[in-house]
Amino acid sequence: MQVLIIGAAGMIGRKVSEAIAKTGTLGDRPVTALKLADVVAPTAPAGFSGTVETLAVDIGDPATAPALIASRPDVVIILAAIVSGEAEADFDKGYRINLDGTRWLLDAIRTQGDGYCPRVVFSSSAAVFGRPFPDQISDDFHLTPLTSYGTQKAIGELLVSDYSRRGFLDGVSLRLPTICIRPGKPNLAASSFYSGILREPLAGLAAKLPVPTSTRHWFASPRAAVGFVLHAATMDTGPIGPNRALTMPGLSATVGDQIEALRRVAGDAAVALIEPAEDPAVAAIVGGWAQDFEAKRATDLGFKAEASFDEIIRIHIEDELGGSLG
Amino acid sequence: MQVLIIGAAGMIGRKVSEAIAKTGTLGDRPVTALKLADVVAPTAPAGFSGTVETLAVDIGDPATAPALIASRPDVVIILAAIVSGEAEADFDKGYRINLDGTRWLLDAIRTQGDGYCPRVVFSSSAAVFGRPFPDQISDDFHLTPLTSYGTQKAIGELLVSDYSRRGFLDGVSLRLPTICIRPGKPNLAASSFYSGILREPLAGLAAKLPVPTSTRHWFASPRAAVGFVLHAATMDTGPIGPNRALTMPGLSATVGDQIEALRRVAGDAAVALIEPAEDPAVAAIVGGWAQDFEAKRATDLGFKAEASFDEIIRIHIEDELGGSLG
Repeated sequence: MQVLIIGAAGMIGRKVSEAIAKTGTLGDRPVTALKLADVVAPTAPAGFSGTVETLAVDIGDPATAPALIASRPDVVIILAAIVSGEAEADFDKGYRINLDGTRWLLDAIRTQGDGYCPRVVFSSSAAVFGRPFPDQISDDFHLTPLTSYGTQKAIGELLVSDYSRRGFLDGVSLRLPTICIRPGKPNLAASSFYSGILREPLAGLAAKLPVPTSTRHWFASPRAAVGFVLHAATMDTGPIGPNRALTMPGLSATVGDQIEALRRVAGDAAVALIEPAEDPAVAAIVGGWAQDFEAKRATDLGFKAEASFDEIIRIHIEDELGGSLG
Repeated sequence: MQVLIIGAAGMIGRKVSEAIAKTGTLGDRPVTALKLADVVAPTAPAGFSGTVETLAVDIGDPATAPALIASRPDVVIILAAIVSGEAEADFDKGYRINLDGTRWLLDAIRTQGDGYCPRVVFSSSAAVFGRPFPDQISDDFHLTPLTSYGTQKAIGELLVSDYSRRGFLDGVSLRLPTICIRPGKPNLAASSFYSGILREPLAGLAAKLPVPTSTRHWFASPRAAVGFVLHAATMDTGPIGPNRALTMPGLSATVGDQIEALRRVAGDAAVALIEPAEDPAVAAIVGGWAQDFEAKRATDLGFKAEASFDEIIRIHIEDELGGSLG
């Protein structure tokens, strides 16, 4: 089978490509061709025996989608997006990539014809929801995006459900938790510290904590995120029902929970590297985010996340730090 | 002030135009210009002292929206749509008119610049919701459209809320009840009989009843619908909050309630003209529709509907039959 990943140069895209390359399969089917696209050409994953094509493309160009879809990939994984902050700062760019880019892909699939009906995995976001929130958000909470990014993702979900209902494709939209521990360096995202307060101390580096330890949020590891995408690419979609958008399971935890898990896994010396440095701007943004989701539909459909931050930290040590600390 | 109505040749568009022409005002402001557009040129309403422009346009043509908006109307009322059945039968046409047409209008407004921020009234639909339903649907019920039309309307609502949040326009989306009693002739809509079983007997004609008398649905008169649009065009939008989509109030009633109201207003002879002729196809479609809405937000914001079917029938007699029966 042929797999197309759009946004393959990003963290999750790279890890999904590597996971497919490693086994050479998706579910129980052999993958013969990987087509990896992003705004910069993705790196081909090592050890894959099939053909790999790496493409630098602009999905904001209407000609891109038909070119990507012409080879009729069996699975299309859409991870590419303008992130929240940039979609808010550049209205046109956010709508062009996140709405038009997605729709052109779905329409390129629809207009292929001849019975073509690939599995489509669309990465959505909890940003489709907006305050006020209940303590735990149920699967039938209303769509109330408070950002242009969240609006664009909500529209993408609605399109994926309608195109699936019409039989043009067989889609699953995944509302991903905040991914923790993100490998690499701190970035400008308001959520960056959630990874930083674990990643930096695990590497012997200091990290700033801009929010109170009581701050609660919703997490899954990069490994869980890859698992969500692979499961969505292979699952039986029969039982999903007409709403193809699923809130992924995750771990609801406070910053205090994160810190105590770090203490258990890496000791007091690691925790001592966390420096409280309250930043009211970050605290205000993060304080408005959802804290907990029921995620019953996704759990019933076989999606799995971590049950503790100890597990999330151990996964980081295994996958990013060679299996042990120092 | 200048008012643009898109979809002005339809039943509600025509009645809204006539209501504005009659008083020469919208809220407490004088209307100096009416611009009436539809796929066929609308009829200019009688008795209006300002300028009237009637335009036959295709909002599925990207050049239409900038041309309509160039004169910077103070109020833009979007009633034009491909209806549910046609949007399901012709996928491309439904998306082009209901999604692209709406978005091009919103974008033509956004790109005017120079502080232009008109009131926009967007007609949405209860089709943004899908089964399974609770007995009464609350204002925060989730968006689960089960048709392409419902999907397109849900997307329109999301766009109106986001464009309003960004300050490009000041929008209100109205989810209208089933309008009853529609004037004119029976049509092919599955809902046609809801008006027919009252309108035809009131005119001394026989009408077929394709569903059981226990069938419950959600109604407002044409006069109430005009009131919704005029109120949305003039209300203080300050208290609405970020979700600009409002489920309009209405009357939850069974077919039996309709018939008993007809008996009270027009007597047994009128009721005797209703001929039970069960149609399982119509009963199946109509049986899946919502039966009752809470509509608390809209009611709190001053939108008003009828409290009984007696009132809905009397409004039809006043507005369409010259005030009395025969």
